[in-house]
Amino acid sequence: MRIDIITVLPELLKSPFEASILKRAIAANLVDVHFHNLRDYTTDNYKSVDDTQYGGGAGMVMMVEPIDKCISKLKSERDYDEVIYMTPDGETLNQKIANQISLKENVIILCGHYKGVDQRVRDHLITREISIGDYVLSGGELGAAVLCDAVIRLIPGVLGNETSALTDSFQDNLLAPPIYTKPREYKGWKVPELLFSGNFPEIEKWREAEAYKRTKTRRPDLLDE
Amino acid sequence: MRIDIITVLPELLKSPFEASILKRAIAANLVDVHFHNLRDYTTDNYKSVDDTQYGGGAGMVMMVEPIDKCISKLKSERDYDEVIYMTPDGETLNQKIANQISLKENVIILCGHYKGVDQRVRDHLITREISIGDYVLSGGELGAAVLCDAVIRLIPGVLGNETSALTDSFQDNLLAPPIYTKPREYKGWKVPELLFSGNFPEIEKWREAEAYKRTKTRRPDLLDE
Repeated sequence: MRIDIITVLPELLKSPFEASILKRAIAANLVDVHFHNLRDYTTDNYKSVDDTQYGGGAGMVMMVEPIDKCISKLKSERDYDEVIYMTPDGETLNQKIANQISLKENVIILCGHYKGVDQRVRDHLITREISIGDYVLSGGELGAAVLCDAVIRLIPGVLGNETSALTDSFQDNLLAPPIYTKPREYKGWKVPELLFSGNFPEIEKWREAEAYKRTKTRRPDLLDE
Repeated sequence: MRIDIITVLPELLKSPFEASILKRAIAANLVDVHFHNLRDYTTDNYKSVDDTQYGGGAGMVMMVEPIDKCISKLKSERDYDEVIYMTPDGETLNQKIANQISLKENVIILCGHYKGVDQRVRDHLITREISIGDYVLSGGELGAAVLCDAVIRLIPGVLGNETSALTDSFQDNLLAPPIYTKPREYKGWKVPELLFSGNFPEIEKWREAEAYKRTKTRRPDLLDE
């Protein structure tokens, strides 16, 4: 899988891709991530990527031209399955969408900044708009990093233990059950006795019941799906 | 506002806090962010922070002791309004929660990693569990960065233009309307004529109607609230 990220702040994205699972996935050639600085596609001396809103109002708007130039160049080099725009009014990311995108070959992710991008970018250049949640961030960069993390860890071979992702919350519409590790007792706080019984069918049953109970209490909406 | 982030991967969090709005907010002393490496609170020679699950199963679990030691030390230095754990089965972050947290004085954010933390941490040390969305990430670090970004930009003085945050999506349960900037025409793609009319009451009316239309199409659930 190849991911091209278009941004005005490539430096913001640096460390999340240089640590942990993303770093290992890139090092193992399981995914190829490229950053494109939008300022390299500007035409004026100031390398302007934004300008004031037509019709007045607070906040700057990212211009269509540099974005079009950058996307066009990438598209001239290979075919893309999706050109994604990170925006709070996009379709809300969930595990199902992450699964879908992890199966794509080439994906562009455009990070908005300031007030957002000129609507013509969205009308003519974007194939999919994704939000990571119902809140506003200062830019699309963290959204892009979150999307990449959610997607890349699903690529086969990225997680050390293949079964690990399958037992995560949301893969089966259930939240994960409580988990415990050493010591058996800490400050009087104890681990449930059953977990030491060696009775694995019973432990499995307990975990399923706890996962269901937690989902029912915290996220009954997931059980309706 | 002071934010203490507890993590096993402080290096992952570096660049998001060294760029853009977070950097400026920190430089202007509007917020004070501290990273704490959980490995500094371990007691063995290997600086272990995790161990295998009691009862069997894939994935490592973060141990209660180093986390308790770190949180206890911080609490001995000042009072905290919240000790937040980033987890996919927590309460889903939205703009309202971001607004709430932006009013707090001292907040701890614990980033989970691997399979998550020992349940006893959640039962005894955490006051609030927050998820940034219905998807699984390789760790809580990106979640913490997202939460900080959403919260810090709401602190008065952080955004250059005070009105800017108020007109964002979600602040009034409406998505933002389309926005446009120069040029008036690009590759035949035109800006709506009304925006050049100088008739600001009409422009305002159009924007409200577009915001409502977009919300109705994309996120009718927001209109029900």
